Amino acid sequence: MGKSNLELVIECDNFPYYEDNRAAYTENLNNYHAFRVSGCDATLGYVLNSVIEKFPWTEHWAIDSAAKTLTLVAPADADPALRSKLIAESIAEAVKQGTFEVLKGWRNENYPVFGPGGEYLLEMERCASCLFGVVTYGAHMTAYVEDETGLKLWIPRRAKNKQTYPSMLDNTVAGGMCTGEKPFECIVREAMEEASLPEAEVRHLIRARGCVTYHHVRDVRAGGETGLLQPEVEYVYDLKLDASVIPTPCDNEVEEFKLLSVAEVKEALAKGEFKPNCAVVIIDFFIRHGLLMAETEPDFLDIQARLHRRLEFPTASHA
Amino acid sequence: MGKSNLELVIECDNFPYYEDNRAAYTENLNNYHAFRVSGCDATLGYVLNSVIEKFPWTEHWAIDSAAKTLTLVAPADADPALRSKLIAESIAEAVKQGTFEVLKGWRNENYPVFGPGGEYLLEMERCASCLFGVVTYGAHMTAYVEDETGLKLWIPRRAKNKQTYPSMLDNTVAGGMCTGEKPFECIVREAMEEASLPEAEVRHLIRARGCVTYHHVRDVRAGGETGLLQPEVEYVYDLKLDASVIPTPCDNEVEEFKLLSVAEVKEALAKGEFKPNCAVVIIDFFIRHGLLMAETEPDFLDIQARLHRRLEFPTASHA
Repeated sequence: MGKSNLELVIECDNFPYYEDNRAAYTENLNNYHAFRVSGCDATLGYVLNSVIEKFPWTEHWAIDSAAKTLTLVAPADADPALRSKLIAESIAEAVKQGTFEVLKGWRNENYPVFGPGGEYLLEMERCASCLFGVVTYGAHMTAYVEDETGLKLWIPRRAKNKQTYPSMLDNTVAGGMCTGEKPFECIVREAMEEASLPEAEVRHLIRARGCVTYHHVRDVRAGGETGLLQPEVEYVYDLKLDASVIPTPCDNEVEEFKLLSVAEVKEALAKGEFKPNCAVVIIDFFIRHGLLMAETEPDFLDIQARLHRRLEFPTASHA
Repeated sequence: MGKSNLELVIECDNFPYYEDNRAAYTENLNNYHAFRVSGCDATLGYVLNSVIEKFPWTEHWAIDSAAKTLTLVAPADADPALRSKLIAESIAEAVKQGTFEVLKGWRNENYPVFGPGGEYLLEMERCASCLFGVVTYGAHMTAYVEDETGLKLWIPRRAKNKQTYPSMLDNTVAGGMCTGEKPFECIVREAMEEASLPEAEVRHLIRARGCVTYHHVRDVRAGGETGLLQPEVEYVYDLKLDASVIPTPCDNEVEEFKLLSVAEVKEALAKGEFKPNCAVVIIDFFIRHGLLMAETEPDFLDIQARLHRRLEFPTASHA
């Protein structure tokens, strides 16, 4: 039988929903502390209690065990640079002490965290973001060819030696958004870096198609500690290519690109061959292109809602 | 300034979210009883306490004031026809007694209600569905023309004498789904009835594009009692037309069709000229067509999530 589309979506969007079981949802929240920064009245992420216990917190942090909050205490006039410096110092100490497996996947890329009005609050090293459970942002593009025989998608296979999800199928182009980066510029850069697609052509033909959002609880496949939270926004783009344009690996992250029919992609999805969040982007692509519909997909409505989860934390404004 | 896109979406999706204010959400729920049917372990809708007090309940109903539930008590072997008959009898009595304003808008159309596995449980008269707060279903189609000068949308104005939202702008074609009807067949039928679009052409060119979902609290504009709940699913379709095809009113629900540019539609949205749920469908259309994006819309992420709200009731499976 293989995996259903709803099963694939739930592999990615696996943090509980309040409306499904109110008692279980509330009980589950007891496993976390709410991450906050002084002067900002919002929970920015959920931190596992085991992380609270192990992390080498400095004097800049306040932990309230009763209220279950972890607060970065910065001076009243602190700006993003100062908050980021305080967090970076604490993360550096945790790296030095070898406290967390996930910190061994150092990327040297900073991910931004936003406040209730979408304002930029601070940044932190990419691989530390799941320790704090903050929302992360990326952009995914699906390149496809369409003729009278139907639609085909350009699908890459990840390199065998990738740290995460080696040899799994991926979206044509995908990347995380660092501080200051906007979704469109991110995807244009990645299209050159990952698929050697010419910038001018990408800028001309690419189309913004919305986003998918999900709240992921990390398992062993992500590497490092399990149970860490990763609420995520992926801006999605389509690129309709002429049959003559062929994406080719540029950096060493991709092994090869193949042009697969919709039937072949659906088969690979059911076999679990796609990286989980890439499966979600493909399912959104199929819905938007009329290739998956209410009459053929029994879980259509639950899938559509879960693909666009309203995250319980403030999110970015890129306008 | 006019209305922002987020304001337009919130006019439609205005039932509170738990994650925005947990105490206020829980407090608000005290205004309702949960609608259930015996033998089915799910809440099918929320019924205003004032409806519970006024409705002429028969012996087939059980009200638990402590648990705040309203249960249709049918025999253990009841089928959808029997449940529907019991509800119809109660609604007929309320009509006879003139208990509710909304029942004066009798449509003589039955709307289906589904259980936790998407199975059909019962049906009830369309205009009564908001008294029980059950999920309703519809289909909306946006017809458009696209050439080198850009994209234009076929926008109708509702007839002056329509019961609801007279003279407001609408989607090209839209209609509610009665029991047994599937979204695709619904929209093809409505395309003929409302816009005189030829069936063969519609079947050939129409494309399923997903759905929008929202949880609406009715205000004066909907007519009748206010505060009634209307959680709703609207399946969305696009129809790209040749410039030579011109939708024309067929029944007397539409006054006229106009071909409006994207700028004209955005201006009409900001002026509040669209029927609220049609505004939501247009905003989804703009996002899917790359006409509204993260770099230009400050509320992009909240809008995307609210357009696809995960309803807290079971929903249909049309597969």
